[in-house]
Amino acid sequence: MAGRFIVIEGLEGAGKSTASQCVKAFIEGLGVELLHVREPGGTELGEALRDLVKRPDLADSPSPTTELLLMYASRAQLVETRIKPALANNGWVLGDRHDLSSQAYQGGGRQIDRHVLESMRDLVLGDFRPDLTLYMDIEPEIGLARARGRGELDRIELESLDFFHRTRDRYLQLAAADERIVTIDASQSIEQVQADIEAALQHAVAQWQE
Amino acid sequence: MAGRFIVIEGLEGAGKSTASQCVKAFIEGLGVELLHVREPGGTELGEALRDLVKRPDLADSPSPTTELLLMYASRAQLVETRIKPALANNGWVLGDRHDLSSQAYQGGGRQIDRHVLESMRDLVLGDFRPDLTLYMDIEPEIGLARARGRGELDRIELESLDFFHRTRDRYLQLAAADERIVTIDASQSIEQVQADIEAALQHAVAQWQE
Repeated sequence: MAGRFIVIEGLEGAGKSTASQCVKAFIEGLGVELLHVREPGGTELGEALRDLVKRPDLADSPSPTTELLLMYASRAQLVETRIKPALANNGWVLGDRHDLSSQAYQGGGRQIDRHVLESMRDLVLGDFRPDLTLYMDIEPEIGLARARGRGELDRIELESLDFFHRTRDRYLQLAAADERIVTIDASQSIEQVQADIEAALQHAVAQWQE
Repeated sequence: MAGRFIVIEGLEGAGKSTASQCVKAFIEGLGVELLHVREPGGTELGEALRDLVKRPDLADSPSPTTELLLMYASRAQLVETRIKPALANNGWVLGDRHDLSSQAYQGGGRQIDRHVLESMRDLVLGDFRPDLTLYMDIEPEIGLARARGRGELDRIELESLDFFHRTRDRYLQLAAADERIVTIDASQSIEQVQADIEAALQHAVAQWQE
């Protein structure tokens, strides 16, 4: 079976880590190689950029455009040096966030023009897209309360509730317009969330095998 | 008099530092505020990116696209947080490198598609351009010998001679096509180089005062 790129997306506290474990177990059950990466990060350079972009203490906090470029720098490095080589080798790749995060956070949250975001994506990624994205949907109030419960917040997690509402709205809009994005109701019980994720994976795998 | 943005460009060892001193003295002679910045760098975030992009020892050296995005991240931050505010305040800005470096190094040296570079520039900078660019032209063989004489070379300075020839060709091509870029023959004596720089500055200032 050819390699596939599956991505978990969603707001802080949406349960992305639990979802990742669930997807990981499913893929390992298929008996295929799995590369598990995160964004921003996933390479030595990308992890350094992740630190820079999340630090709340820089004298000059990145402007929205700078932040967008740093996210794409991390993404370009990860796609070119790790994801594409793994896929070319028939490996499967599980990504904790990918391009949809930029479309939702920088587009919805930071309100960068949609045309600029799409042009940036096309310039950097060409037509490279995940085969399946699971968007873990949660009310920002609930997600942020969970994230706060985990400890200190980073620069992005310190944004206003409005920022996260705009981000969620953009996520929902983009998910509705793309059949390769499946929205999972992350406010349900863990058991139900896992059942929904497995159903989405089984459906996708069945399609890929046709 | 309104603020102006003047940039020094050229290959390693072309004498950009000496040229900067000369421009600096000229501008100070006008009795205006001067902000002197360099790229990549010029902000706390940008200097961190400069270190990352020049380090020859990263496990994953930045891909050409990643490098381009890091250069633009540094540039966006510098333009938005320092250069534009200074110009808005009628200050003058002297830049050691700016966008022309990306067009020449990433376009000529790394052979990234010209359309991609121009799209990236327009996305990030809109129509923001320097008022005057002094391109210090030197044969790569001579420039690199000078740069080597200064000590250890960084990741970019370690590129092949072909890389620098392609970069120089692109510089010359772009300078010929833009009247706001003046080519200075940097192989001349220091006195003649300084005289040419002063003549270019006087000519530009006279035009701006018209």
